[in-house]
Amino acid sequence: MKTRLTEALGIACPVIQAPMAFAAGGALASVVTDAGGLGMIGGAYGDAAWINQQFDIAAGTRAGCGLITWKLAQQPHLLDQVLARDPAALFLSFGNPAPFAPAVRDAGVPLICQVQTLRDARQALDCGADIVVAQGADAGGHGEARGTFALVPEIADEIARRNSKALLCAAGGITDGRGLAAALMLGADGAVIGTRFWASREALVHPRILARALSATGDDTIRTRVVDVVRGFDWPGRYNGRVLRNPFIRKWHGSEDALKLGTGAEAAQWAAAQDAGDPDVATAFAGEGIGLIRSAPPAGEILASLAADAQRCLAAAASVAGG
Amino acid sequence: MKTRLTEALGIACPVIQAPMAFAAGGALASVVTDAGGLGMIGGAYGDAAWINQQFDIAAGTRAGCGLITWKLAQQPHLLDQVLARDPAALFLSFGNPAPFAPAVRDAGVPLICQVQTLRDARQALDCGADIVVAQGADAGGHGEARGTFALVPEIADEIARRNSKALLCAAGGITDGRGLAAALMLGADGAVIGTRFWASREALVHPRILARALSATGDDTIRTRVVDVVRGFDWPGRYNGRVLRNPFIRKWHGSEDALKLGTGAEAAQWAAAQDAGDPDVATAFAGEGIGLIRSAPPAGEILASLAADAQRCLAAAASVAGG
Ligand SMILES: Cc1cc2nc3c(=O)[nH]c(=O)nc-3n(C[C@H](O)[C@H](O)[C@H](O)COP(=O)(O)O)c2cc1C
Ligand SMILES: Cc1cc2nc3c(=O)[nH]c(=O)nc-3n(C[C@H](O)[C@H](O)[C@H](O)COP(=O)(O)O)c2cc1C
Repeated sequence: MKTRLTEALGIACPVIQAPMAFAAGGALASVVTDAGGLGMIGGAYGDAAWINQQFDIAAGTRAGCGLITWKLAQQPHLLDQVLARDPAALFLSFGNPAPFAPAVRDAGVPLICQVQTLRDARQALDCGADIVVAQGADAGGHGEARGTFALVPEIADEIARRNSKALLCAAGGITDGRGLAAALMLGADGAVIGTRFWASREALVHPRILARALSATGDDTIRTRVVDVVRGFDWPGRYNGRVLRNPFIRKWHGSEDALKLGTGAEAAQWAAAQDAGDPDVATAFAGEGIGLIRSAPPAGEILASLAADAQRCLAAAASVAGG
Repeated sequence: MKTRLTEALGIACPVIQAPMAFAAGGALASVVTDAGGLGMIGGAYGDAAWINQQFDIAAGTRAGCGLITWKLAQQPHLLDQVLARDPAALFLSFGNPAPFAPAVRDAGVPLICQVQTLRDARQALDCGADIVVAQGADAGGHGEARGTFALVPEIADEIARRNSKALLCAAGGITDGRGLAAALMLGADGAVIGTRFWASREALVHPRILARALSATGDDTIRTRVVDVVRGFDWPGRYNGRVLRNPFIRKWHGSEDALKLGTGAEAAQWAAAQDAGDPDVATAFAGEGIGLIRSAPPAGEILASLAADAQRCLAAAASVAGG
C-alpha cells in the first residue's frame, strides 16, 4: 500500500501500532515493524527501567516510543533518556506537547501527537507535529468524547489549511481491513491501532483477561474513571478510559467518590486481581472494536491479513463508484 | 453509484435523508428524493395533522416517514394512518419495533430500523427489518453511546450471519463524500444522513439557530438530557440527544434534577427562545459533523456534490491499494 505515511516513514503498510501502557513491549513493537508497520513501545507513565528493557528486547528493529504527556511534564528528564534510545518516532498523548517538541525536533526524531479534539489538533500543528493522530472516543484506553468518524475529516481539513505537510492518522475502532480502508477514505494517511494488537500473541496481557475479552461484543465497553480512581492515577479531568465492563466496573461506575473515600481495600483487591488476571475485577482497557476480535494470533499475522483485506476493500471501491 | 441499497430502493445514490423531528418536512424529503436519494418526513412524536400536511407537500414524490418507536407504542393507531399515506419506507427508531413490524410488512412497505447497539440490531433482524441503520453516538439528535466506526462493521458481520438479505446503512457523522465512501468501506450499503440536511435551504430550522450552527466546530456538541427535561419529553433513560452547546445547555447539563424541580420558568423561557430562534437558549440538535458544514445550500445541491465527491474518493481508492 502507498500513502503519504508509508512514504514518510518508509513502511509497507500505513499502520502504527499504538503505544499501549503495560501491554506494548519491545516484542510486540518489533514484530509489527518487521511485518511492515511501525511498532511502538508503550512508555506510558514513564518507568525508565522498563522502557530501557523493552528497547533492548526490540534491539535491531525500528521501534517508536509513546509517553503520556501530562505525566512526562512531572519528570521531564525522561525525554532525553528515551531520545537517547534513538526511537523511530516519539508519540505524545494527553497533554500539551509544546514544551517537549523542540527537543524531539533537535534529536531528529519524528514527533507524533495524538489528539482528541480539533482544538488539540491546532495545538499539535502549532508546535510542529509531524504526524497528528485523531483519536476518537471509540478507542480503547484513555481518551475523550469525540467520535472517530467526524473527527478525522475535520482534522484533515485543518491540516490542509494550516500545514499541509503534516500527516494524519485515525485512531479508535480500527481493527480490520474495512476500518483501515475507511480511515483512508476519511482523509487519513494511515491508522493507529491499539485494541487489535492488544489481542495478539506478543502483547503483555494476562491470558484470563484476554480470554474474557475475546468473547465480548462492542456493546460491552464503557468509558469510565473507575480504574484511575482505584489505582490512584491522577489523570486530568477531561480524560477517561474505555474498558470492558465487568462486575467491578459495574459496581463503581457512577460511584467514584465513594471508591475514593474507601479504605483502600478496593485498591488492594483490584491490584491483586490485576496480578491474578481475575476478569471480574481486573481491568481490560479495550475499544469498541473488541466485538470484531475473536482470537489473538501473532501480531505479524494480524497486520498481514489486515493489510490484505484493506487492499481488497480499496480495490473493490471503484466498482461501487460506478460512473 | 451502485450498491445493494440503490438496487433495492431504486435510487441513484445510496443516501437516505434522516427523518428529523420538526426539521424534516415534505419539502426537504421530496427534494432529496428528486436528487436521487430517499427523502424522509420526520414524523417523530406523531403529530398526525402535521404528518399529513407534510405528505401533501411531498405529493408526487416518493417519501418515507420516521416515527419514534416508544412514542408510537403510546398511540399505536398512528401507524395505520401513516401507512395509509403509502410511504416509500417506514423508519422506526428508539424502542422495540417488533409489535409494529407485521403491519408494516402487510402493507408492503419497507421497514427501516435504526439501532444503537449490536443487541438492538439482533432485535431488528429478528423482527424482519429490511434495512438496519447502525447509528453511532457521533450522530445529531437522540441516540446512545456506541461510536459509528466500530458499530457498522460489527453489525455488518451480524447481518451476514443472521440474514444476509437485510441491508445496512451507517448513520452518525457522515456529512460529505469522504464519509459516504468510508461508510461503504466499513461494510454498509448506504448512509443515513441528518445534520448535513438539517443545514439545508429546505429544512425547517430557524435562521438564527442555523447561523449559529454554521460557525460551530465538531468540538461544540454534547450528548445531554437537558432538552428533554426542560420540554418534559419522557425519553427512556438509555437515550440522550446530541446538541450544540450554548449557555442554556452549559448551565443545566449535569443539573438536570434541579431543572426538573424548577418552577416551569425555564420551560417557558426555553419554549419562547425556540420560537424566537434565540441561539443562546434554544436547542439545535446537531451531530459532530457540524464542524464540516459551513453553509446551508439547497438539499439537492448537497446530495449532488456529496455523491460526486464520494465517487471521486472511491475511484481513487484503488491507487492507494497499490498492488
Ligand atoms: C490497552 C490499551 C492501552 C493504551 N495505552 C495508551 C498509552 O499508554 N498511551 C497512549 O497514548 N495511548 C494509549 N492507548 C490508546 C491508543 O493510543 C489508541 O488511541 C487506541 O488504542 C486506538 O483505538 P483502538 O484501541 O480502537 O485501536 C491505549 C489503548 C489500549 C487499548
Ligand atoms: C435535528 C435532528 C433531528 C432528529 N430527529 C430524529 C427523529 O425524530 N427520529 C429519528 O429516528 N432520528 C432522528 N435524528 C437522528 C437521525 O435519524 C440520524 O441518526 C442522524 O441524524 C445521523 O447522524 P448525523 O446527524 O451525523 O448525520 C435526528 C437528527 C437530527 C440532526
